[in-house]
Amino acid sequence: MHFASDNSGPAHPKVMEALVRANEGYAMPYGAEAAMERVRERLRDLFEAPDAAIYLVATGTATNSLLLASMCQPWQAIFCSEVAHIEEDECGAPEFFSNGAKLSLVPAPDALMPPEALRDRISRTAQGVVHGVQRGPVSITTVSERGTVYSLPQLHKLTGVAAEFGLPVHLDGARFANAMVSLGCRAADLTQGVTTLSFGGTKNGLLGVEAAVIFDPDLAWEFELRRKRAGHLFSKHRFLSAQMEAYLTDDLWIEMARAANAAASRLVAGMKTIPEATLLHPSHANIVYATFPRAAHRRLQDAGAQFYSMGSPEGDPDEPVRARLVCDWSATDANTDRFLDILAD
Amino acid sequence: MHFASDNSGPAHPKVMEALVRANEGYAMPYGAEAAMERVRERLRDLFEAPDAAIYLVATGTATNSLLLASMCQPWQAIFCSEVAHIEEDECGAPEFFSNGAKLSLVPAPDALMPPEALRDRISRTAQGVVHGVQRGPVSITTVSERGTVYSLPQLHKLTGVAAEFGLPVHLDGARFANAMVSLGCRAADLTQGVTTLSFGGTKNGLLGVEAAVIFDPDLAWEFELRRKRAGHLFSKHRFLSAQMEAYLTDDLWIEMARAANAAASRLVAGMKTIPEATLLHPSHANIVYATFPRAAHRRLQDAGAQFYSMGSPEGDPDEPVRARLVCDWSATDANTDRFLDILAD
Amino acid sequence: MHFASDNSGPAHPKVMEALVRANEGYAMPYGAEAAMERVRERLRDLFEAPDAAIYLVATGTATNSLLLASMCQPWQAIFCSEVAHIEEDECGAPEFFSNGAKLSLVPAPDALMPPEALRDRISRTAQGVVHGVQRGPVSITTVSERGTVYSLPQLHKLTGVAAEFGLPVHLDGARFANAMVSLGCRAADLTQGVTTLSFGGTKNGLLGVEAAVIFDPDLAWEFELRRKRAGHLFSKHRFLSAQMEAYLTDDLWIEMARAANAAASRLVAGMKTIPEATLLHPSHANIVYATFPRAAHRRLQDAGAQFYSMGSPEGDPDEPVRARLVCDWSATDANTDRFLDILAD
Amino acid sequence: MHFASDNSGPAHPKVMEALVRANEGYAMPYGAEAAMERVRERLRDLFEAPDAAIYLVATGTATNSLLLASMCQPWQAIFCSEVAHIEEDECGAPEFFSNGAKLSLVPAPDALMPPEALRDRISRTAQGVVHGVQRGPVSITTVSERGTVYSLPQLHKLTGVAAEFGLPVHLDGARFANAMVSLGCRAADLTQGVTTLSFGGTKNGLLGVEAAVIFDPDLAWEFELRRKRAGHLFSKHRFLSAQMEAYLTDDLWIEMARAANAAASRLVAGMKTIPEATLLHPSHANIVYATFPRAAHRRLQDAGAQFYSMGSPEGDPDEPVRARLVCDWSATDANTDRFLDILAD
Repeated sequence: MHFASDNSGPAHPKVMEALVRANEGYAMPYGAEAAMERVRERLRDLFEAPDAAIYLVATGTATNSLLLASMCQPWQAIFCSEVAHIEEDECGAPEFFSNGAKLSLVPAPDALMPPEALRDRISRTAQGVVHGVQRGPVSITTVSERGTVYSLPQLHKLTGVAAEFGLPVHLDGARFANAMVSLGCRAADLTQGVTTLSFGGTKNGLLGVEAAVIFDPDLAWEFELRRKRAGHLFSKHRFLSAQMEAYLTDDLWIEMARAANAAASRLVAGMKTIPEATLLHPSHANIVYATFPRAAHRRLQDAGAQFYSMGSPEGDPDEPVRARLVCDWSATDANTDRFLDILAD
Repeated sequence: MHFASDNSGPAHPKVMEALVRANEGYAMPYGAEAAMERVRERLRDLFEAPDAAIYLVATGTATNSLLLASMCQPWQAIFCSEVAHIEEDECGAPEFFSNGAKLSLVPAPDALMPPEALRDRISRTAQGVVHGVQRGPVSITTVSERGTVYSLPQLHKLTGVAAEFGLPVHLDGARFANAMVSLGCRAADLTQGVTTLSFGGTKNGLLGVEAAVIFDPDLAWEFELRRKRAGHLFSKHRFLSAQMEAYLTDDLWIEMARAANAAASRLVAGMKTIPEATLLHPSHANIVYATFPRAAHRRLQDAGAQFYSMGSPEGDPDEPVRARLVCDWSATDANTDRFLDILAD
Repeated sequence: MHFASDNSGPAHPKVMEALVRANEGYAMPYGAEAAMERVRERLRDLFEAPDAAIYLVATGTATNSLLLASMCQPWQAIFCSEVAHIEEDECGAPEFFSNGAKLSLVPAPDALMPPEALRDRISRTAQGVVHGVQRGPVSITTVSERGTVYSLPQLHKLTGVAAEFGLPVHLDGARFANAMVSLGCRAADLTQGVTTLSFGGTKNGLLGVEAAVIFDPDLAWEFELRRKRAGHLFSKHRFLSAQMEAYLTDDLWIEMARAANAAASRLVAGMKTIPEATLLHPSHANIVYATFPRAAHRRLQDAGAQFYSMGSPEGDPDEPVRARLVCDWSATDANTDRFLDILAD
Repeated sequence: MHFASDNSGPAHPKVMEALVRANEGYAMPYGAEAAMERVRERLRDLFEAPDAAIYLVATGTATNSLLLASMCQPWQAIFCSEVAHIEEDECGAPEFFSNGAKLSLVPAPDALMPPEALRDRISRTAQGVVHGVQRGPVSITTVSERGTVYSLPQLHKLTGVAAEFGLPVHLDGARFANAMVSLGCRAADLTQGVTTLSFGGTKNGLLGVEAAVIFDPDLAWEFELRRKRAGHLFSKHRFLSAQMEAYLTDDLWIEMARAANAAASRLVAGMKTIPEATLLHPSHANIVYATFPRAAHRRLQDAGAQFYSMGSPEGDPDEPVRARLVCDWSATDANTDRFLDILAD
């Protein structure tokens, strides 16, 4: 019963096999291996972007920060949701990589920025007046940090707001596959109006690889220099491209996201039948936020269930526990059902 | 005949097996997995440093830069050899991570800093006067960038110079194993007087892992924050600790370094019998710098030999070619001998 | 009728005279001139802090940023009001000087942070967990950006909250004199529990000097290096110390602040008699925020009155104009009354 | 007998008068005052550059660093002489402002870079290969740090080398006036091929102002943002423009530089008649480097002469003292002759 994070699960066996296969003999380093060329072609096809520059980075924090830094100046604002991962969970990495850009926070119920709130935040930011931080890129996360997914119209309205002001858009797609499966759309539907994308793999069955997809090729060389300078260019790069190639082969990435989303749906469906469990946010993909009674929390812990709970379990015994449950590709129905059983007990 | 770099060779099969084994089920992320605790113990034992803080980082550039940044202030000088990897091959990573520290270059014949040259450089650097950059850490590389290895007395004289001025010492041990095998000493002999060590694995048979060994535990928390902030903290960290654990098991790391050094010795011995080949630097470990005639260079290239050559091959036809040959753990006698045969022809 | 800013008025004639006097012959540079020693003694006496380190800086932005950077790490949060000058009007200077610290905004009605709001913001900030930005200094502004002044109990509650968490406190005293006059207290009353102070002079009758008062002398040397490295150490420093010495002589600084505050009080008293004028915030010192009808705005503009107005004057003709009026030491009753007459007309 | 530095002398009385005149009434802040427009016109005329962007900054360190940062990327090298002021005397300010650019040092006898040495250094710097720091601006100082002045052909060869590689050129003209007077040329002769200029005033009779002259107007807006963000935009900017306007009026700046250079020439002429005094570098402007016997050094010190001496006066009693003597506009023949008399005694 592991729902702590999709970064706690195993990599898919096919990925491990690809890794072992990639280990034969010598290979050109730093992304010059043949597999990387194939990865580039696959991703350009997928995103219907023949000119896109494609790079692999081993962590999501680095991918987001390298992309944002390549899109903005140190004296600019990066507009994002008030609970964005780049704001809350990266120890100031965007500020570090960008040499001090400022994250400008947009109120976001259920972690989704309303277009008008984004427009308002941008409007109130300096442009052309030297005293204030200037307008910079918009960063959007989907699947969001609360498990919600922007509908395509919602997403396109946000990129439209950025376009009104001539600002570039970064899409934090650490869980891109889960969002796409949730919407049932094409990959390119999600990146319409998007300048750069963090295309996640680590949370969806890889060991540790994200693709930086740069739709504006003018940013590519700067990205390469920033990646090297930040120690994120791998010499034995073949082990990154092998993962990503396996990911994209035979739609493995979609298969894994489907499994993760299905597990979350099963959790949600089950909870809806349990009166004491209350969903905190709509669950559109593989993340479930809920509260349940403290006693249930204790039962689950005693049974070894792993998940992230907010608020001290030593608090008011009557106050319910807020929990975050994340499903990965390897979640099993048996475990999910067992979790629900204990919760319902 | 692959002598381009020890980062072009494969990982050792035992490492791949360990990786596959580590992929079972769920594991705590970010270094909280059980294997990491074992790695810490092994490295503390190896370096006879029960209080050392140990972290894993996926690239050498990041390891060096994170350690140096944790050891210095932005307004300090980092003293290093004029051909140090951190100066020449990391695109300014130490400057980036340290927020602008200055690399202060020490003349270094054969890439080895004479102690008096280091002392002179430090002496001429400001201390306590606000107009100049202040004295900061000393960074030493062994195996050096030219394939030489400091003798233990040489090394201890350098750390002694740093101690005279109260400065901390960073050891860039990207090829630590090769240096240790070359000297036939204990690991701890090399780290006497050293504050932090980049303990390399990537160039010696891993996929991509170095250990940051911090002998001064007061630097540990800052290092952790810097690592996270730089996007170098891996969620699926088990794949890093698995590599390092395999590396340290049954002295695999020493076995691999021995093989690499032996291959270089074989190259050197062979070249000494070939009149046209001239060694440019003493070869103490697994790197050989040599010149050979342009015609020989062409023969080798035509036969598919891979190595790094300096000076345009389209230059003066009489001018010999300078070449760098690096042997990795998987080098074979057959390939080495074939290289020598073609060279001698 | 100049109410645009207290940085638009002239320097006091006594300051100019001091400047001319200071220009005789040669003087030691960089703060080693004799006058600087006298300034140090005066300020240590004033703040009853015999160990305080004292430096002069020519701009308020630099003073605030150098102090904050000396008090925090790049991976820390600086807690401040949501409308703090360091957040809104310095083009990201604190982020630049601190190498990327994050400003963490506290809701602040009338630009005054309630202690519980500050405590809440700090509590929700990471400490000891590597994923989030860590807790850093608290920055308080008084006179605030909306013209209010913390009462001494309010101020001491805020510094008390910082002390609960062991955090240092920065006081942005760009209008310190106006706040002190407003409260009728001693200088040291305002700096109880404060770690560093920007003691403003520029907005109160100097040409361009602020004193950085550092109550924790351990921060002094780092401040000196940061000041130099940022190009804020003046060679002909005597022209800074001469201004500050004149400022402190015969309570000139208090005399000027009294005049400025009195002018604002006169404005406020007058406006209260004008039905269409509405005060937006309590006016405790030398700043007045008010709205008045668009027609009145036009009359004032036509008469040459200068002040900062928010909201386009071309907007809805029925919508009142929001105005900020700032009084400096050289404001005259005649001008103030004329302004009120036109407004009332 | 003050030869410590041209930053120890007084400002010219005409400058002080201008400052007092500028202090009347209210003025627009931040460079919007009328005098600044006149300064812009004067400098554009002087440099025959109608499109140049002109800004005032209060210190030379900031002017150099702001200009260099606006001309380069953090991952680039700034090429300069091995004894450049930006390398030796600014506590790493260029690294700070540029977010970590690397100063790449060119050997420079008498502090003058030979064109071939500059070309060699640039050639050996990476371009288009991600592993090394990339080529960035060339920074040239004249009057140099050793008192020499590039001849116009020497200077134009250097800018020509930069042009070969398509690199921009920064001219550190902290003593621009002294160089121009030394060469007897027009101001624009010195800035042919130059992208940005630090046009010094502080060392030549102002209180503290340099002009940043930006010949490529595309750099202007970035410079403005960087200046603000670094706390170098003055609110009461009129006191900067007043200084610069007085400087440029009736060729006051040239008159002062002539006086300073003449004083140095008198020193040099005198020393040439004193056998024990040895000039260390050609003295082309207002700086003299010389050695003289330890006994003479002591006589001068006892008589109150002020200058900068290198090497401890407590050293070997037979070893001569190295001294740097700098003349400012207010130097008198009487003092110079007295110095020479004591030296000769």
